[in-house]
Amino acid sequence: MMRHLISAADLTRDDAVQILDTAEEMARVADRPIKKLPTLRGRTICNLFFEDSTRTRISFEAAEKRLSADVINFAAKGSSVSKGESLKDTAQTLEAMGVDAVVIRHSASGAPYRLATSGWIDAPVINAGDGTHQHPTQALLDAFTMRRRLVGRDAGLGQDLAGKRITLVGDVLHSRVARSNVDLLHTLGAEVTLVAPPTLVPVGVETWPCDVSYDLDGVLPKSDAVMMLRVQRERMNAAFFPTEREYSRRYGLDGERMAKMPEHAIVMHPGPMVRGMEITAEVADSDRCTVVEQVTNGVSVRMAVLYLLLGGNESAVSHTRTEENK
Amino acid sequence: MMRHLISAADLTRDDAVQILDTAEEMARVADRPIKKLPTLRGRTICNLFFEDSTRTRISFEAAEKRLSADVINFAAKGSSVSKGESLKDTAQTLEAMGVDAVVIRHSASGAPYRLATSGWIDAPVINAGDGTHQHPTQALLDAFTMRRRLVGRDAGLGQDLAGKRITLVGDVLHSRVARSNVDLLHTLGAEVTLVAPPTLVPVGVETWPCDVSYDLDGVLPKSDAVMMLRVQRERMNAAFFPTEREYSRRYGLDGERMAKMPEHAIVMHPGPMVRGMEITAEVADSDRCTVVEQVTNGVSVRMAVLYLLLGGNESAVSHTRTEENK
Amino acid sequence: MMRHLISAADLTRDDAVQILDTAEEMARVADRPIKKLPTLRGRTICNLFFEDSTRTRISFEAAEKRLSADVINFAAKGSSVSKGESLKDTAQTLEAMGVDAVVIRHSASGAPYRLATSGWIDAPVINAGDGTHQHPTQALLDAFTMRRRLVGRDAGLGQDLAGKRITLVGDVLHSRVARSNVDLLHTLGAEVTLVAPPTLVPVGVETWPCDVSYDLDGVLPKSDAVMMLRVQRERMNAAFFPTEREYSRRYGLDGERMAKMPEHAIVMHPGPMVRGMEITAEVADSDRCTVVEQVTNGVSVRMAVLYLLLGGNESAVSHTRTEENK
Repeated sequence: MMRHLISAADLTRDDAVQILDTAEEMARVADRPIKKLPTLRGRTICNLFFEDSTRTRISFEAAEKRLSADVINFAAKGSSVSKGESLKDTAQTLEAMGVDAVVIRHSASGAPYRLATSGWIDAPVINAGDGTHQHPTQALLDAFTMRRRLVGRDAGLGQDLAGKRITLVGDVLHSRVARSNVDLLHTLGAEVTLVAPPTLVPVGVETWPCDVSYDLDGVLPKSDAVMMLRVQRERMNAAFFPTEREYSRRYGLDGERMAKMPEHAIVMHPGPMVRGMEITAEVADSDRCTVVEQVTNGVSVRMAVLYLLLGGNESAVSHTRTEENK
Repeated sequence: MMRHLISAADLTRDDAVQILDTAEEMARVADRPIKKLPTLRGRTICNLFFEDSTRTRISFEAAEKRLSADVINFAAKGSSVSKGESLKDTAQTLEAMGVDAVVIRHSASGAPYRLATSGWIDAPVINAGDGTHQHPTQALLDAFTMRRRLVGRDAGLGQDLAGKRITLVGDVLHSRVARSNVDLLHTLGAEVTLVAPPTLVPVGVETWPCDVSYDLDGVLPKSDAVMMLRVQRERMNAAFFPTEREYSRRYGLDGERMAKMPEHAIVMHPGPMVRGMEITAEVADSDRCTVVEQVTNGVSVRMAVLYLLLGGNESAVSHTRTEENK
Repeated sequence: MMRHLISAADLTRDDAVQILDTAEEMARVADRPIKKLPTLRGRTICNLFFEDSTRTRISFEAAEKRLSADVINFAAKGSSVSKGESLKDTAQTLEAMGVDAVVIRHSASGAPYRLATSGWIDAPVINAGDGTHQHPTQALLDAFTMRRRLVGRDAGLGQDLAGKRITLVGDVLHSRVARSNVDLLHTLGAEVTLVAPPTLVPVGVETWPCDVSYDLDGVLPKSDAVMMLRVQRERMNAAFFPTEREYSRRYGLDGERMAKMPEHAIVMHPGPMVRGMEITAEVADSDRCTVVEQVTNGVSVRMAVLYLLLGGNESAVSHTRTEENK
């Protein structure tokens, strides 16, 4: 297992499968009367958010608390960063205080990588999203959701996503989710296709391990999972962006389009979604849409990552059993 | 017992008495060396504050931690609400993450009701104040304070406030406390009188289960408790508001006025108070003024509400005893 | 032992030595698999920060959580202070809620003193920095760092800093650290010299228990520890401040200057530092520079202060042993 989680591209197939298998164990904790494991008692985890992201922060915080860790939240606003303290000083401060892991969210691509490789800090670093670069725990929770739905919970244990056809649709350019997913899904053996407006395809996409298409209707019948990306208008140059109506006509998912997908195929979205533009209410509320499951799975996957990076020697299973016998 | 706590008007007399009785048990926890119950261990409670309210947030947080719950604070500023995420999405996200209860504060009247009745969330919803509408835990802690002072701690168990004469004075128009108190006090059998400047009486007050008077000095001798409301100048149109001096002359409480109250009668205030205008220092510092007790009681009452909404099967008493025997 | 910790000047030699000895015990907790003591379980500590200070807040929060206390963070922004609630009301509210200790940071010198002596609150008050006045836990962690390095960990137990020569260099005028350190170091028997630009020496320094010099190079060979202060340009009148180059030429520490210090002497800095101006990278990265240790020691010292102010009867040692045998 790696020491940090910076990029989905760093994960081997076996690393990723181990995380997904551990997440299955963690998911069972949610079914108990006391939804808590003693695994990380006495460990302190710092959520270092240089950029707002309530969803991701709450998901990590819930995961950390279910593992009995002590949690320190640090939001960059109002921090001593404004006194000229650099990422280096912040890192060294947290390390010196004995923080056992740092979850970092940053608007600058590469900040988590610098933190992990600088030598400033020994504690594991977990990337909770950096610029338009990576969001590896999102990719893992998406893969976990796909494996559960397309392979099965018990049947999925030990398995990857070999041969599954996954389509990512929409604003690939501004999406850290897209890049992380493409990397991880490729590692797990899936066949990935991107469908996006030409203006929202990143330069250099031809080097990514996936296909690119501009024909959503043609791709849907050959998809096991369709992941709709969030349109990040706040990051866009308006001149290059189609109208909302034009966008949804060509790249949105409505009931009619969903009907072109195979019966077993699922619709995914990282949330929060702009209903109407990206996805219609009919699709969002359908049983095939996994947006709510993805959020649930996020907590289990983050528990698994924290456990594997911090838990060290003992197996999650034995911990789990010990607690159950209490 | 109800599933949510949205409005004091939803509480039956028996619900309310059960909460007050449970709060008496919770109050005893504060006298122990370790002021903590294991009741909600492994449960996660989210304090979802779309509006600032330090007092209320800290009171809930203290109550949650004394019950051993895991607490996640969420302030709307800097949240993904700014990414266009609706209350619906926020609710579904928290539900999907397995949050066990949501304490919500919102500037919009009705937001907690929407959250509780929407079907977006199964977890209990507790209204921590919505617009000028309701603040039911404030009403409960006020009723608890009245019962303790006017009926007795042990003598009060199982009792309501039948026949007690309660006067609310001041800015009724902008007070969610006023409306919640009138509803609950009526349910508990008290006789409520509102005294307010005509410009600070809400339209439709004639449908409320209480009397309205403009003669404070006439009402005081017939009051068992006088609750002074906070003047919310920040919500007022200056043109309709009397000067501070004029206000305090007619609706403020000083020592001379307090002397007109029966000897056993108490003075209440939800805090924070504007000394001088609403109440003089002499009154605030008198033994008859319960403003500090109200804050203390707030923690016990919120523990009781959380316990009853979340604790489910076991009785608080048995929990309490178990912990004491440890 | 005192009831509050407001100023380093309030500490007797024996108080201070007891804190340093207790901090040595606390430091051992960090070496265990579960870095946590049950000492303050069931106690609630409020971190009341009217001024931003991420470093100090996180250090206190880590210390509180290692002692198993429940922690409530309160930042003044967005608080009901904006509703006209005074420090008095805030204090009475926290007291009424049963908060067991208040850690206060305030931009106004004297605010913690008012809080502790007002009678508004019985709970211990710990000053986490007030204006340019005092920062006693910083002084204690600095003294702890000196004792460990100059006397020894085990050899230091029960000892003070008698005869040690300590030099403080730089912006004494704006430094609450300077004043706290001079007071405490004097109490512990050290000989203190301040070296500062004439414009950054406070009025009245002649009453402080220390020498003042303007000749850094002359003082260095006679120093056992040299503490470089942070230059607080944000508090300065630019007209009175030398250029960065001029400042570092006369008051900065580089390798050449460090070589003039005795071999055993250490370089300290409260962080965050402005590299280049106050200290060169060569000095900062040297083994003689204790800036990282100071941060680590800060958690141990704050644990000791909280333990001694709150723990009361039981000895930290017995607690420590009990936990170890589990």
